[in-house]
Amino acid sequence: MNRHERLISELARHGLDAVAVVAGGTMRYLTGLDLHGGMRIMVAVFPASGEPAFVLPALEEPRARAIIPLPMRYYPWTDAEGPTAALAACARDLGLAGARLGIEYTSMRVFELRGIEAAAPSVEITDATPVFAALRMAKSADELASMRAAVQIVEGSLRAAIAQVRVGMTEIELGEIWDAAMRAAGSAPSFSTIIASGPNAANPHHTNSSRQLQQGDLVIMDGGAIYEGYASDITRTIALGEIVPELRSIYELTLAANKAGRAAVHPGVAPEQIDRAARGVISAGGYGPRFLHRTGHGLGIEIHEPPYIIEGNREPLTIGTTFTIEPGIYLDGLGGVRIEDDIVVTEQGGESLTTFERELIVI
Amino acid sequence: MNRHERLISELARHGLDAVAVVAGGTMRYLTGLDLHGGMRIMVAVFPASGEPAFVLPALEEPRARAIIPLPMRYYPWTDAEGPTAALAACARDLGLAGARLGIEYTSMRVFELRGIEAAAPSVEITDATPVFAALRMAKSADELASMRAAVQIVEGSLRAAIAQVRVGMTEIELGEIWDAAMRAAGSAPSFSTIIASGPNAANPHHTNSSRQLQQGDLVIMDGGAIYEGYASDITRTIALGEIVPELRSIYELTLAANKAGRAAVHPGVAPEQIDRAARGVISAGGYGPRFLHRTGHGLGIEIHEPPYIIEGNREPLTIGTTFTIEPGIYLDGLGGVRIEDDIVVTEQGGESLTTFERELIVI
Repeated sequence: MNRHERLISELARHGLDAVAVVAGGTMRYLTGLDLHGGMRIMVAVFPASGEPAFVLPALEEPRARAIIPLPMRYYPWTDAEGPTAALAACARDLGLAGARLGIEYTSMRVFELRGIEAAAPSVEITDATPVFAALRMAKSADELASMRAAVQIVEGSLRAAIAQVRVGMTEIELGEIWDAAMRAAGSAPSFSTIIASGPNAANPHHTNSSRQLQQGDLVIMDGGAIYEGYASDITRTIALGEIVPELRSIYELTLAANKAGRAAVHPGVAPEQIDRAARGVISAGGYGPRFLHRTGHGLGIEIHEPPYIIEGNREPLTIGTTFTIEPGIYLDGLGGVRIEDDIVVTEQGGESLTTFERELIVI
Repeated sequence: MNRHERLISELARHGLDAVAVVAGGTMRYLTGLDLHGGMRIMVAVFPASGEPAFVLPALEEPRARAIIPLPMRYYPWTDAEGPTAALAACARDLGLAGARLGIEYTSMRVFELRGIEAAAPSVEITDATPVFAALRMAKSADELASMRAAVQIVEGSLRAAIAQVRVGMTEIELGEIWDAAMRAAGSAPSFSTIIASGPNAANPHHTNSSRQLQQGDLVIMDGGAIYEGYASDITRTIALGEIVPELRSIYELTLAANKAGRAAVHPGVAPEQIDRAARGVISAGGYGPRFLHRTGHGLGIEIHEPPYIIEGNREPLTIGTTFTIEPGIYLDGLGGVRIEDDIVVTEQGGESLTTFERELIVI
């Protein structure tokens, strides 16, 4: 079954008359269009039966027709007309009034929702995030090949960047070196590369600063590349010379948590079991409260997508599902460690797409 | 008045009890936080009186406290807890149940809306886009200084890129040269740089391809830089050697439309009058249907923000408001022209922040 056929069968399974998709990862997955959510309404509607429809700005229509492989009915609108009539025509032709319509709560914006509600009186809107998650989580062989290439690029460029690490270099400089190496490989960063050094490494969401790397620092390096629209995401933590014993010991604890998380991956396992496996190691080591975030997130077209590797997520993992395992320990004023791998669920367990060495690299 | 005080007075003027702001340009404007809308609920609530409040992931709290200059009450939530209790506590403390709450329809997503609705029973949600537009459209002296710097960077890098244009170079290569020049100047592209050559220039939203530049091409070059969080956005169209007479004539017509648009800018003028001034020139020249988009868009923290320079926008322009004027003509199979400037409304009329020469450059 192709993607559209799989969507249709998911609609039947969830009792939905149609789904409406806006710019984002699911749009890319279903149509091939890489759109950013602008201020102009652009929504693709996939009914449970019959031809899908696309309401979009007229100036996007030629590109959409060139890229979208599906037969689709187009409802273009111009800036002069506005989108109201196009939305209404689409809703009428697809019988959306009173229909049960799934949308992605995490990507549709309120003006798009209100536009649909106005065009399709008494439409029943429901959250179709699980429908799209079920479609997108398990990757095809082609998707996995793209992700492996994205991993290869990020690992090669990480190696090149680590080879250039020097005391006195700023976080911003080191980040730019890594980014440039990804670009030189024909790729681009899949998100803002994080270089968090010394005390800055205590903040999991640090923004690269002009702080200069110093002897005794741990430096968290977190980056990803893009290949054919698919992302990789890796974190390694390196040391500049001798580090204090507590930093060494949280490094080893984080590494053990990473290993335990990876070992817990099997088809049918719930994400929360992987979270518990990784978190349990850190808690047992006495640093539970310093593991400030979830163990991981799904990875693919988007850098963060289902499944989330978190307590409470009991949806069994299926073969082909891809996600990160990235335990970390963060000590205010002192530093931090994170070790992140990209995992795919296989028949045998979890295969790590990332194979960069995990033992502490000391510069 | 500072930004928060101006917001409060706008709330009173619009009869709103509070506004709720999510990741995006308005969040940056009001708090200084440069956030991307992830899957974790993060919402700042500004009541008409009393201290504002911020519901956010616990791991974002330290950074928010470090950056936000306002006294603010924080409602952090962890991945293990989820956001429901934090949202409910915030809604209770601020009395949001039954309140008239403004949100930005163009940036808030449905899961954020539903989270607020669940936390604040019978809250009355309204679109506060005009409130935020009124706040953000007219720039302060500091904001204009940042935009002037962003213009300087994009113009210097455009000049450097044009100096390297050669027949046989691909669109992707030329785009990377321009991007690299922006980065070398300590900036970064504010959006995906567009290089549209030959027949590709007939598509206003072209994605750079591996097409090689050829003799006789018009090449549309559309790019912007970022300086201290503020964007520039310029388009120039250059020729590779001799071009056919029709391309030369649409160049001159587009240039005349650009001039007419700029000349129409005065305090108190409606954006639609500027659109008509520019569009009228192109229509009179017989290419009205080939000017495929609006005449311009607001520019500042975001690359597209109010005011939109479009028929139907009658909100009079005030001094300090910044926007683009970018007429274009697009001929299928042949090529296209766009000439874009960044304008600020002054007492005397419209000042173009972009001063790069507008006459056709022939390589």
